[in-house]
Amino acid sequence: MSTWGEHFRVTTYGESHCRSVGCIVDGCPPGMQLTEDDIQPQMTRRRPGQSALTTPRNEKDRVEIQSGTEFGVTLGTPIGMMVRNEDQRPKDYGGSTMDLYPRPSHADFTYLEKYGVKASSGGGRSSARETVGRVAAGAIAEKYLKLSHNVEIVAFVSSVGNEHLFPPTPEHPTPSTNPEYLKLLETIDRQTVDNFAPIRCPETEASARMTKIVEQFRDAQDSIGGTVTCVIRNVPVGLGEPCFDKLEAKLAHAMLSIPATKGFEIGSGFGGCEVPGSIHNDAFVVSADQRLTTKTNNSGGIQGGISNGASIYFRVAFKPPATIGQAQTTATYAMEEGILEAKGRHDPCVVPRAVPIVEAMSSLVIMDALMAQYARESAKNLLPPLPATLPTKPATAPNGA
Amino acid sequence: MSTWGEHFRVTTYGESHCRSVGCIVDGCPPGMQLTEDDIQPQMTRRRPGQSALTTPRNEKDRVEIQSGTEFGVTLGTPIGMMVRNEDQRPKDYGGSTMDLYPRPSHADFTYLEKYGVKASSGGGRSSARETVGRVAAGAIAEKYLKLSHNVEIVAFVSSVGNEHLFPPTPEHPTPSTNPEYLKLLETIDRQTVDNFAPIRCPETEASARMTKIVEQFRDAQDSIGGTVTCVIRNVPVGLGEPCFDKLEAKLAHAMLSIPATKGFEIGSGFGGCEVPGSIHNDAFVVSADQRLTTKTNNSGGIQGGISNGASIYFRVAFKPPATIGQAQTTATYAMEEGILEAKGRHDPCVVPRAVPIVEAMSSLVIMDALMAQYARESAKNLLPPLPATLPTKPATAPNGA
Amino acid sequence: MSTWGEHFRVTTYGESHCRSVGCIVDGCPPGMQLTEDDIQPQMTRRRPGQSALTTPRNEKDRVEIQSGTEFGVTLGTPIGMMVRNEDQRPKDYGGSTMDLYPRPSHADFTYLEKYGVKASSGGGRSSARETVGRVAAGAIAEKYLKLSHNVEIVAFVSSVGNEHLFPPTPEHPTPSTNPEYLKLLETIDRQTVDNFAPIRCPETEASARMTKIVEQFRDAQDSIGGTVTCVIRNVPVGLGEPCFDKLEAKLAHAMLSIPATKGFEIGSGFGGCEVPGSIHNDAFVVSADQRLTTKTNNSGGIQGGISNGASIYFRVAFKPPATIGQAQTTATYAMEEGILEAKGRHDPCVVPRAVPIVEAMSSLVIMDALMAQYARESAKNLLPPLPATLPTKPATAPNGA
Amino acid sequence: MSTWGEHFRVTTYGESHCRSVGCIVDGCPPGMQLTEDDIQPQMTRRRPGQSALTTPRNEKDRVEIQSGTEFGVTLGTPIGMMVRNEDQRPKDYGGSTMDLYPRPSHADFTYLEKYGVKASSGGGRSSARETVGRVAAGAIAEKYLKLSHNVEIVAFVSSVGNEHLFPPTPEHPTPSTNPEYLKLLETIDRQTVDNFAPIRCPETEASARMTKIVEQFRDAQDSIGGTVTCVIRNVPVGLGEPCFDKLEAKLAHAMLSIPATKGFEIGSGFGGCEVPGSIHNDAFVVSADQRLTTKTNNSGGIQGGISNGASIYFRVAFKPPATIGQAQTTATYAMEEGILEAKGRHDPCVVPRAVPIVEAMSSLVIMDALMAQYARESAKNLLPPLPATLPTKPATAPNGA
Repeated sequence: MSTWGEHFRVTTYGESHCRSVGCIVDGCPPGMQLTEDDIQPQMTRRRPGQSALTTPRNEKDRVEIQSGTEFGVTLGTPIGMMVRNEDQRPKDYGGSTMDLYPRPSHADFTYLEKYGVKASSGGGRSSARETVGRVAAGAIAEKYLKLSHNVEIVAFVSSVGNEHLFPPTPEHPTPSTNPEYLKLLETIDRQTVDNFAPIRCPETEASARMTKIVEQFRDAQDSIGGTVTCVIRNVPVGLGEPCFDKLEAKLAHAMLSIPATKGFEIGSGFGGCEVPGSIHNDAFVVSADQRLTTKTNNSGGIQGGISNGASIYFRVAFKPPATIGQAQTTATYAMEEGILEAKGRHDPCVVPRAVPIVEAMSSLVIMDALMAQYARESAKNLLPPLPATLPTKPATAPNGA
Repeated sequence: MSTWGEHFRVTTYGESHCRSVGCIVDGCPPGMQLTEDDIQPQMTRRRPGQSALTTPRNEKDRVEIQSGTEFGVTLGTPIGMMVRNEDQRPKDYGGSTMDLYPRPSHADFTYLEKYGVKASSGGGRSSARETVGRVAAGAIAEKYLKLSHNVEIVAFVSSVGNEHLFPPTPEHPTPSTNPEYLKLLETIDRQTVDNFAPIRCPETEASARMTKIVEQFRDAQDSIGGTVTCVIRNVPVGLGEPCFDKLEAKLAHAMLSIPATKGFEIGSGFGGCEVPGSIHNDAFVVSADQRLTTKTNNSGGIQGGISNGASIYFRVAFKPPATIGQAQTTATYAMEEGILEAKGRHDPCVVPRAVPIVEAMSSLVIMDALMAQYARESAKNLLPPLPATLPTKPATAPNGA
Repeated sequence: MSTWGEHFRVTTYGESHCRSVGCIVDGCPPGMQLTEDDIQPQMTRRRPGQSALTTPRNEKDRVEIQSGTEFGVTLGTPIGMMVRNEDQRPKDYGGSTMDLYPRPSHADFTYLEKYGVKASSGGGRSSARETVGRVAAGAIAEKYLKLSHNVEIVAFVSSVGNEHLFPPTPEHPTPSTNPEYLKLLETIDRQTVDNFAPIRCPETEASARMTKIVEQFRDAQDSIGGTVTCVIRNVPVGLGEPCFDKLEAKLAHAMLSIPATKGFEIGSGFGGCEVPGSIHNDAFVVSADQRLTTKTNNSGGIQGGISNGASIYFRVAFKPPATIGQAQTTATYAMEEGILEAKGRHDPCVVPRAVPIVEAMSSLVIMDALMAQYARESAKNLLPPLPATLPTKPATAPNGA
Repeated sequence: MSTWGEHFRVTTYGESHCRSVGCIVDGCPPGMQLTEDDIQPQMTRRRPGQSALTTPRNEKDRVEIQSGTEFGVTLGTPIGMMVRNEDQRPKDYGGSTMDLYPRPSHADFTYLEKYGVKASSGGGRSSARETVGRVAAGAIAEKYLKLSHNVEIVAFVSSVGNEHLFPPTPEHPTPSTNPEYLKLLETIDRQTVDNFAPIRCPETEASARMTKIVEQFRDAQDSIGGTVTCVIRNVPVGLGEPCFDKLEAKLAHAMLSIPATKGFEIGSGFGGCEVPGSIHNDAFVVSADQRLTTKTNNSGGIQGGISNGASIYFRVAFKPPATIGQAQTTATYAMEEGILEAKGRHDPCVVPRAVPIVEAMSSLVIMDALMAQYARESAKNLLPPLPATLPTKPATAPNGA
């Protein structure tokens, strides 16, 4: 279904070429100042037409709040949001070829199989325009997280093709054991990332090489994949529901729900499998403010499915976009072999525009986990103290205050 | 929460050292023959004490069905299942050290922070004993999938440490472009996997090297990680809910909910980011039985979040186990630096025993998606035919029959 | 939350005086013809300003579909719907008194306590305008139910004040034992109900008496309650999830979620408690088309939480509206006693306008239960036949065909 | 499905004649003292065989906690609970007649239609034994509510057949306008209710008349219905989710999910429809402890779907039990007319034993709503204060403290 979250619940609607796209955000805490100005910046970072590296479709993507606020303050009731589809060119998709062929590795075939009908043009519901509602909702969650806990969420491009910001080495099969990498994660901010527009990889040389790769694939009417790394700082200890809804499991779910994603790894990730436990284990130390923290962070801020107070970071793989101009030998819906040269306006590499989408989904995951823990923590705090027979600790707020 | 699934819903209970562990399976189709004999084989593949490479804890893990069947047939009502905890040795965990220290990279610290109390011994709820209920539930789903669609689910160990069954190469940054790999995925079965016990990597030489690695780490009182690959064959076309509940997103959620996992990749995965779209795209061809299928399978059987009828395959990363016998400098709950030498019975490498758990979670994901699609498909099939104005296809059953 | 349903899921948004109200319908079967013309009639039956007996607020309530259809056919994707708020007069609610007092028996006080903020005018989210989205969604469900199973849903006013269409008698403490009542339930249609506008009680004399009562209360600036009875015909056998989600439990939930409701009874209801089991039991007989059916219908079409194929009928109690023009001695938010004479435009009796809302919620309940049963039934039908050892019956479609 | 609740989630299992019945309670706050002794009293109040007025089936109904506690303290993890089925006599139900006939107004027919199979004896899942798990779970919720907020939940029998504790009168079409009734609701406790065993109507003369009615119907091998009234005192202000999940809607859902229920009314209920708004409205007054409260309580403690701090009370209708010994002319599964004289052990009137079940479901509803509000309230309280432009109130805890 098109719903995310139990406490801070987002439901999205909209196809690539319908009247509008948008969402309803239910469960937003009441009493928070909120206007379109809080939401628009991430919409703008996501929108198409930003540079010569992205699709030339031109959408202003102005968000309009329909309900749930009054005098610029949230009422606690559902927040309806809408963005009109303006630069529609359904005709680009019609004509002699695009109607006849399901695009290879695209959703055309499976949507038709699943539903028996499909939108006649563009990706319909499978289009990245569907993420407009996610980004709008994420901006609200993010504002709350910032105001209440100073949570900072920053994503950036960490590879394009085989060009990596931190390539694996024999010493560091995962960058998580490399102090330089952890330092970057602790300091990177969005302004810095955007300074490296259009590629959004925050390092001058890597950025230049990546840009060149994308240009080459664009010019060849081909496409290429890449990865986005995201860090979430200042997350309270104790978030995540053990068993099925571990915090990293929800993050994985959220990230793999973004179109074109192929993989997710938390903390040390796949490379971490190659590191001995004696090195991989994050030993405890006492922090400057006299709390237990970890000396290293191969865990990526999550242990046993629960946040431990350290920075949460993960990496998401995006495949090369399926729609390419290059001729492809494939088959028609009518099961005849033929050659498809796709039209339409498409990105040769999605990772730069994926950055705000990864951030949005991150904020939705953390927000929902936070409210779940609030419920438990508040409930616990109203109980009478226990007899001193267990290794318990005093009740604390979710932020550890 | 401890619930998985909307249609075929599993709720588990149990800690490492309580009276019993188990689950309730709600929504199982009625009229299916089912006894403990259908469930026990996977329980036995998962149980501890199988070999010198795994924890010596000895549990028979005999499952007892409490409800939901009569005369060996499912009633459609909730199926209660229970496995007694027998070989409990909570004392192993007590004593002078284990009570004082949160184990590095273990759930000890975060559980105490989250709940304010924690089980006094073992991992409590974070123990892998929690997966007993998942495997029992998965065996039921798997039986249904086999009976109704001949679905086959086979997992195996694909790497231990830096020893890979299919290591990445410049030509094949992802094995998904390697025909040898796809051939293995189409033919591997559980019997073959178990023939390579205890390591469960179905290739003689790799298996030997991996076994040696695990022995080395075990003897050094250290631990090492690895990956499990899983293939699901004969999945009907059309499963997966677009937007947030894409099929690969649910699989990622399910896999990252297994203790000790760090990553998930579907199809070409992270390596696929390095492959041009023109190679990565799975062109359509007509199959022997006159249906559209794909020539290659970099998609891993899923396009746009929806199964396309090809084999679904993915890889899961497991970190080195956190509990090691080796001395670790860390801090106590009381925030004093000290040295922990962990006791208890633990696996030096979890991947061999993770195999049936990965299979179980896979079957739960597919089962739930299948029933969601049944609801839609049945609803659609009762509608009158449309005027012939859209690129629609005739209504078909979810299995495309 | 503002979400209803698991399979056919409706999420609504909107307050009494915001930019628009509306909803997202997720899970609508694909391939159904649908335009605004299918939805508007029920919107119009619900809208204010219909007669001298209802609030003079004048809203055209034109619904606009935003997404989820193309060429007038559902795509299976979320259907966004919007109705603009036009005749807003927030000033009516301001001024010297309405800002100062929480209206007695209204949501003003509890919303402020719950959220800490409240909409400055009108009922905000507690306004009956919130039901606009429900009625729009219900019209879609209803169209599906009609097309697929010829389901007919008809509600009508069964009492106003102490004036009842079928008052309880010693012989019939519940009308469900009265054949005249059952006959009405089998034959009533919407056209007949609307012929008795504005009161919508389908009997000439009762209708006249009820109209008079409403006029009296309106003229006295007072208000009065009433009941709405609803019948749902041609519901397939087998709908409803035993245990917590019995079909009558979901109907009760749905009905008590409509503003101003105070009670719900299914079939014989409260009066049925006074009837001996030997009379109350619905004996089985063989129907004309050779199926088991019941001779009487005190069950109201549901046994053990599951539909039995007979007509489902129930009654819903609506209290006298809380907002009255008459002077009331009460207290201000600032806890000072005073006299409130409420302004604004309000209904003296809500039951006539509640009729389409009751119908809409009914259709949402049946639609969701139908899709749940489709999933189970389809799953069951793919299993191999059982050995003949149980009192089973052959697999049938949910509609018993 | 067999799951109740989002935050405090109960999943039950078990049929009338399987190995055990029970439940899993997920989401219980950690750090609460809890043993079987907290749960057993309500189990004992519910169990069969209590008196000559109830079924002679003899079950001790000893509950065993399987998980989720250690040293008598909740861990915050799922609490598994089990009660063995001991006094099983499936043979009572077999033989020449009970196998052939679906019992009129029972679940036999609809279960077979829904599932295609049914339990061979007794009610299977539709048996009241399914409520064992609910009562066990409710006892845990109730303990929490008592410890944290001093919530008191008391149910009692308010009518049997046409014998009412507070019969409707022209002056009081609903007892909610009768001060005597409200006084009873404020003072009644469980001990007093049980002093009127076996009928549990807390008034000497009414109790005697009701007992006599039940005896008459029992001796005639017939059955009779009745109502249970329940009051919930000291519920914090602000519970209930507006729109679909109003607090009274959840209560209605919960109550109508109890076997044999036919109706639900909150506060003034159906009788309240006959009372003018000017009388029905609950004017605000200032309480002794300087808070806004209401002078009357026709609302039943809920306004706009949200608790207002006054006592919540409601009434539930239970039909005459379907299984009666008296001969009934009906039809067999094979569609032949015949005469059924039901065997088995059954209650002639269920209301006395329904009392603890109604209390249990009440506690589950309140507990879940409380935790939902905790999440919102905690989230709100961490926001910075607003500029003073809205009619807001200072943030408070859910208990208004």
